[in-house]
Amino acid sequence: MDRRQAEADRWRTEGNRRGVSGTPELRGAYNFSAGPATLPRPVARRVREELAAHAGDGASIIEISHKHPRFRGVLDTAVALYREVTGLPEEHHVLFVHGGARMQCAAVPLNLIGRSPTRTAGYVVTGLFAQQAQREGARYGTAAIVAGSRDTGFDRIPEVTARHCPPDAAFLHLTSNNTVYGTRWNDFPRDCPAPLVADATSDILSRRLDHGRFGIVYAGFQKNLGPSSMALVTVRDDLLGHALPETPRLLDYSVYAASGSLDNTPNTFAVFVLSLTLEWIRDQGGLAAVERTNLAKARLLYEELDRTAFYRPTAHPDHRSVTNIVFRLADESLTGEFLARAQAEGFLGLAGHRLVGGVRASVYNGMPQEGVQALADFLREFARERG
Amino acid sequence: MDRRQAEADRWRTEGNRRGVSGTPELRGAYNFSAGPATLPRPVARRVREELAAHAGDGASIIEISHKHPRFRGVLDTAVALYREVTGLPEEHHVLFVHGGARMQCAAVPLNLIGRSPTRTAGYVVTGLFAQQAQREGARYGTAAIVAGSRDTGFDRIPEVTARHCPPDAAFLHLTSNNTVYGTRWNDFPRDCPAPLVADATSDILSRRLDHGRFGIVYAGFQKNLGPSSMALVTVRDDLLGHALPETPRLLDYSVYAASGSLDNTPNTFAVFVLSLTLEWIRDQGGLAAVERTNLAKARLLYEELDRTAFYRPTAHPDHRSVTNIVFRLADESLTGEFLARAQAEGFLGLAGHRLVGGVRASVYNGMPQEGVQALADFLREFARERG
Repeated sequence: MDRRQAEADRWRTEGNRRGVSGTPELRGAYNFSAGPATLPRPVARRVREELAAHAGDGASIIEISHKHPRFRGVLDTAVALYREVTGLPEEHHVLFVHGGARMQCAAVPLNLIGRSPTRTAGYVVTGLFAQQAQREGARYGTAAIVAGSRDTGFDRIPEVTARHCPPDAAFLHLTSNNTVYGTRWNDFPRDCPAPLVADATSDILSRRLDHGRFGIVYAGFQKNLGPSSMALVTVRDDLLGHALPETPRLLDYSVYAASGSLDNTPNTFAVFVLSLTLEWIRDQGGLAAVERTNLAKARLLYEELDRTAFYRPTAHPDHRSVTNIVFRLADESLTGEFLARAQAEGFLGLAGHRLVGGVRASVYNGMPQEGVQALADFLREFARERG
Repeated sequence: MDRRQAEADRWRTEGNRRGVSGTPELRGAYNFSAGPATLPRPVARRVREELAAHAGDGASIIEISHKHPRFRGVLDTAVALYREVTGLPEEHHVLFVHGGARMQCAAVPLNLIGRSPTRTAGYVVTGLFAQQAQREGARYGTAAIVAGSRDTGFDRIPEVTARHCPPDAAFLHLTSNNTVYGTRWNDFPRDCPAPLVADATSDILSRRLDHGRFGIVYAGFQKNLGPSSMALVTVRDDLLGHALPETPRLLDYSVYAASGSLDNTPNTFAVFVLSLTLEWIRDQGGLAAVERTNLAKARLLYEELDRTAFYRPTAHPDHRSVTNIVFRLADESLTGEFLARAQAEGFLGLAGHRLVGGVRASVYNGMPQEGVQALADFLREFARERG
């Protein structure tokens, strides 16, 4: 912590002296941060253009009312394109809710747990954010852990069938991709009597997802959707209207559904960036095309990691994440050197989550193929030199 | 609503065709929106520079982890400058909380009302957002309306003394500036046995405010602080640690205080813009200088409005807001023409709140003196032509 604080102090001092924007250390690099994460470059360019177009009048998209027809148009675009790109069934609403995915860990039980006569919900605990969701759920009722992979260090997705679902459960919660441990679900539970709820923060829009199999899908913005501090929530119409009385108005999904997410001012910048992101996805050929690209990017890295015993990918091969590629060096004493060399060669954000250490390359939609190829080359070179 | 929807549809269609950023109608104008609102131009320029500086690497301030030393430096800068600029007493924390001011209408009682043995709080109801705060407070206990100005159409601030405060109250809530009706407090209640809580959304950093007289001051970002969907909350240390058990983790102020607002990812873009805004305020000569400028801007408009019976400012002269200047035309049938002409001449966002109609000019820190002078000239010209 002391080193981190010293570094923050240095950035603060230098940031002020240079004008916060002058940060040459980050230029010409590839940013593999787990989130907030790199935007697709065409999206970032359009954000810059928007701010430049309104240099004179102070009326860029972040400076006008959320009731202004222009912002309404942006929001309608985002909703319509999300529906189009994901094939969202008609009876599901698209909501923009304050506070990121972590806030939804409270909002989901506040909205749904009242549907269970015993105030029970089921949780599949496959990693850090799944644990946090379960703990928050326990604030509002019985948050039963019905399955998990803690015993094996969260290296896999457990098998979950209808019998795992508690009979009275208001919902069954799972995390479709595990950001910290680098695993993901391939087949979601079938025939569960309770509605499925998915935290899809780290794989939303990275692959096709049949929203019709879920009662609620929620995702924080900061990985594949846009800047931080807003969540996209899709909710099936019949699940609205059951919020507990102590639900803050702005965590009640029915308030968002009734107002088109305009009961108060949403994160207008985030919705704007999402609208651009969705146009970019459509222009790539839609989610099927984006999914193919992401699979190819991940394969490039996993093949390099599997080629030699120098690296040890940690996830079970059947459950490897496509967006968060987590591995260790067989000789752990080389990890520090690996990360320092990577940083020096322009690969940013590769340190593993502080809970697990090791290395993590987060490869969301915004990471171009050439960045992944450059990292694969670096992996090979480093293994040759130090292996 | 149909007209609004049609307009939104037009923006959506044209927005897509033109690339959402092409909005010539807004160029070369002065933006008097109530919020989200115009940023100081030097702040907007630095935001553009930041995004341009990272065009190549995908590692601008909105694309890196909130744990990255660079963002830590930005956040530390924002907190330190807020303390410096407002003279915040040492025992008050500065927190960045998800969801804007409206979310704090729930968070404040969730955090404080447990301190009252009867779960009582007092509310001074001086306008729309004060009403909404009181209604949200009633979700968690007795939200007693101790004073208000509803009987006179919210045209003034009532006198409030210690005797108005319910004996057992956990806090007394007021709204320091009324965005919709254009009034503001000049003298805050003294000797109230309960801690004062102020929603300062629409006048934060527009004038000096003695935070030491309040237990909590909260403000949504979208007027004088930056983009929407985050609140700045200052809270006195002894008021932490009393949250009700049903408080969502991310509405518990003690979680923010303990983590330095980094328990999860904050709205990193909003905090970045705030840090730039605070540097700009410091460079203006601090809050005293900004307050003088704002008083001069407001005086320019009020003098023009008072000069003739053509216009009717609605707030009691003793309680006029400096940031939201609300008036009607004596001949109300001219309001539509006034607004259309203003829009055509490049004055944006002048329509009054839909609840009250009429005209509202919101003049936050970002509105330059010349914009106000241009509007004053327009007021005079329109009154001469149509008076």
